[in-house]
Amino acid sequence: MAPPSSFLFLLLLTISATPPPIQSTPTFFPKPTNYQSSLLKQLAKSNPNPKLPYKTHYFPQILDHFTFQPQSSKIFYQKYLINSHYWHKNGPIFVYTGNEGDIEWFAANTGFMLDIAPKFNALLVFIEHRFYGQSMPFGKKSYKSAKTLGYLNSQQALADFAVLIRSLKKNYSSEASPVVVFGGSYGGMLAAWFRLKYPHIAIGALASSAPILQFDDITPWSSFYDAVSKDYKDASLNCYEVIKGSWQELEDLSAQKLGLAELSKTFKTCKNLQSVYSVRNWLWEAFVYTSMVNYPTEANFMMPLPAYPVQAMCKIIDGFSTRATKISKVFAAASMYYNYSQTEKCFDLENETDAHGLSGWGWQACTEMVMPMTCSDDSMFPPSSFDYKDFAENCRKKYGVMPRPHWITTEYGGSRIEQVLKRSGSNIIFSNGMQDPWSRGSVLKNISATIIALVTKQGAHHVDFRSATKEDPDWLVQQRRQEEEIIQSWVDEYYRDIKHR
Amino acid sequence: MAPPSSFLFLLLLTISATPPPIQSTPTFFPKPTNYQSSLLKQLAKSNPNPKLPYKTHYFPQILDHFTFQPQSSKIFYQKYLINSHYWHKNGPIFVYTGNEGDIEWFAANTGFMLDIAPKFNALLVFIEHRFYGQSMPFGKKSYKSAKTLGYLNSQQALADFAVLIRSLKKNYSSEASPVVVFGGSYGGMLAAWFRLKYPHIAIGALASSAPILQFDDITPWSSFYDAVSKDYKDASLNCYEVIKGSWQELEDLSAQKLGLAELSKTFKTCKNLQSVYSVRNWLWEAFVYTSMVNYPTEANFMMPLPAYPVQAMCKIIDGFSTRATKISKVFAAASMYYNYSQTEKCFDLENETDAHGLSGWGWQACTEMVMPMTCSDDSMFPPSSFDYKDFAENCRKKYGVMPRPHWITTEYGGSRIEQVLKRSGSNIIFSNGMQDPWSRGSVLKNISATIIALVTKQGAHHVDFRSATKEDPDWLVQQRRQEEEIIQSWVDEYYRDIKHR
Repeated sequence: MAPPSSFLFLLLLTISATPPPIQSTPTFFPKPTNYQSSLLKQLAKSNPNPKLPYKTHYFPQILDHFTFQPQSSKIFYQKYLINSHYWHKNGPIFVYTGNEGDIEWFAANTGFMLDIAPKFNALLVFIEHRFYGQSMPFGKKSYKSAKTLGYLNSQQALADFAVLIRSLKKNYSSEASPVVVFGGSYGGMLAAWFRLKYPHIAIGALASSAPILQFDDITPWSSFYDAVSKDYKDASLNCYEVIKGSWQELEDLSAQKLGLAELSKTFKTCKNLQSVYSVRNWLWEAFVYTSMVNYPTEANFMMPLPAYPVQAMCKIIDGFSTRATKISKVFAAASMYYNYSQTEKCFDLENETDAHGLSGWGWQACTEMVMPMTCSDDSMFPPSSFDYKDFAENCRKKYGVMPRPHWITTEYGGSRIEQVLKRSGSNIIFSNGMQDPWSRGSVLKNISATIIALVTKQGAHHVDFRSATKEDPDWLVQQRRQEEEIIQSWVDEYYRDIKHR
Repeated sequence: MAPPSSFLFLLLLTISATPPPIQSTPTFFPKPTNYQSSLLKQLAKSNPNPKLPYKTHYFPQILDHFTFQPQSSKIFYQKYLINSHYWHKNGPIFVYTGNEGDIEWFAANTGFMLDIAPKFNALLVFIEHRFYGQSMPFGKKSYKSAKTLGYLNSQQALADFAVLIRSLKKNYSSEASPVVVFGGSYGGMLAAWFRLKYPHIAIGALASSAPILQFDDITPWSSFYDAVSKDYKDASLNCYEVIKGSWQELEDLSAQKLGLAELSKTFKTCKNLQSVYSVRNWLWEAFVYTSMVNYPTEANFMMPLPAYPVQAMCKIIDGFSTRATKISKVFAAASMYYNYSQTEKCFDLENETDAHGLSGWGWQACTEMVMPMTCSDDSMFPPSSFDYKDFAENCRKKYGVMPRPHWITTEYGGSRIEQVLKRSGSNIIFSNGMQDPWSRGSVLKNISATIIALVTKQGAHHVDFRSATKEDPDWLVQQRRQEEEIIQSWVDEYYRDIKHR
């Protein structure tokens, strides 16, 4: 799935589990914002947008589906991509429910849909999420204030998908076509919720790495960072201990006279460091992202990285002589993440550029997408708690609105999900890889015969959505085959149903 | 169910199937508005609000659940009624999902819930629908314009119920209580939709006389008035023919010099008639309402009426000598509806008073609740078609908004409902009586083992919701027992589920 999602998800975690202060209280959106942008810059370099086999369209979409105020007649143009090459009339329609970023990113990183389209004679549709990419209801002013951002939320997004899909089927005079929705990460949450809320429009959903249970206290708040830590601990106990110990070393060094100057040298910064946070968050982010994308093959998802990058990082750390400082070890490990391609001569840790679409997720995290996270004593990160009051106050300061921390579970449910969904709802696949820390907030057990959890021990963040490669291990090939077979069974069932009408 | 609903529903029909012009083009909301109000006045007389066994509460409710604009932080006070007399902690919670009117009306006319509460040890809750009764987000200005009325729609109402129920369970520290929703007419649509959209909050729904299929072209547009006509035809062919012929007689007479004066005499109007529409609509409404409330026992739902009032009306018509004019016959029949209690000396047909809550439904009918209706040649009413353009233009004139005629089916579904709901959703009872013309737009066949249609040949508009009486016929006693048993099975299943957690 596309990087922005993960970026923004990480922003979310960074909000939710701000590393503890070292010199002064950290600001609400501390340095991570910068790394988002620097990451994106490097990404733009490392991932030149491939020629995608999709035609771009724009749909005149209703701004506000749920009020009929004069302004609700306001229309914005929602971008979507179509591939009808493999499609036969009345064949299935596979829709990617876009998440928090440019839809091309998702299309480029969801080769799975393209891989299976020929077998299904499927029409492929990728719908961009409102307020991301080019689907900006208020143009450049879309992120201006709560007055405009107010229309950015998951319920409006789901209604967008419903209206667009219905209109699309009419235009293709293919009302009889079954629709299957696909989504990864936040897009996976949207796909699962879409099947639950709009079963009359989608016959099933494949929700990959969708942490729909990361809300309220359904999932333990420390589980995300514990899962990151487990990836490193499983790779090497020493590696885990070095990282765990490095934060204190960092704090001690920064407390010294000329500490920042020394750190600037150690971390090969292009400019002298202004704050030690930059370093801490630079490391923090490298370790978290690498565990998310701990893929079995060399990949260029968020960064060009080798196969099983967590193991590769730990190899670097374990390779040092015991006398070397922990800081020098973690720097070497993190530079593998930031500079595997060896193109960077220095690291620009404190560069403030616009974080492209990030404020969109920042808004969602401050209104409905409240996912509390903490770092336990067992994690390899400095222990941290989640203070809702601070969080809410910071949201109020930044956006002028207060979060609704329990709204998502009121609107979509989550607690006692097995009992609820085994009695209602059907045809959802929740796929997760246990290497991905987001897996802990998803559905990891079958709920019913038709609400299935596909869990792989070695999988990472929606690895199943990536294009098949020759190097794919058997468990991944097998997982994708299972998904294909289940989707086939939904489609067959649908056609049987309408035949016996 | 409470009168206002039916009134407003009728207003809706009157919009949808405006009787054909006689002298001039009828205005958008022609005379019926008056009858609404005159009906309500008589109702107020005839039905002094009984002492209800409920405590009144007000809940601080979010105005706009689906945007996070500054004004979305606006709160209004939503009225709800509680009876905890029979409740045992963690016992079931029975919630009436209020529809378009004062919640006391619904409570007073849904004695069924009170009748079964002791057996279930249930907590009874009646939630008033936003923008009706006392639950006015903008006080007296709530109906002022689209800017305020914009927040009046079914999706916001369902979210109100979800938020209120969740908060209620918390305050009663009864999170483990199963919730069952009950609703009649539009309230029944809300109950069914609530179970489909919020299965994590309600374990089941009893939707009585809920025409969820009266949208788009799912149900034939002429079915409503054909059903009304069938009630009269079944009572007596002559009765049906007299009524069917009366409209022409009315038109001919009104074309004559002094025709209105003559009509004023025949119809015992308190003031001289200004328009023949008054008469036509006065009759129209009497026939439609009487078929809706063609109850097996004497009742005082919309008017004090005898058992099987349609048959009683036809008896009056059939009792006349063949020489009598059709007009004199239908007048006599209609006066039974308006004046069964013999209290009226004359009829105030053209009195313009505020129609109490009616504009609320008028708004809903002009935005999302677009239910096209026509009168076929076989109906006993003058043939009429449905012109969407005129309808939409009149809505624009009146409210400054255009309808979204396909929004309800996009948001809630409806077409191919059997195929959709047999694969998702469960625990809904659709109860209907075939005497009620609204039954034609509801679910009349079982969809699955848990989505059940209870249909009675002799039942009328949600007769099952009325308090049990000694005179109730066996089929009604039997229907209520079935409903009770099915609800019991949902509750038992729920408790088994949480036990085997």
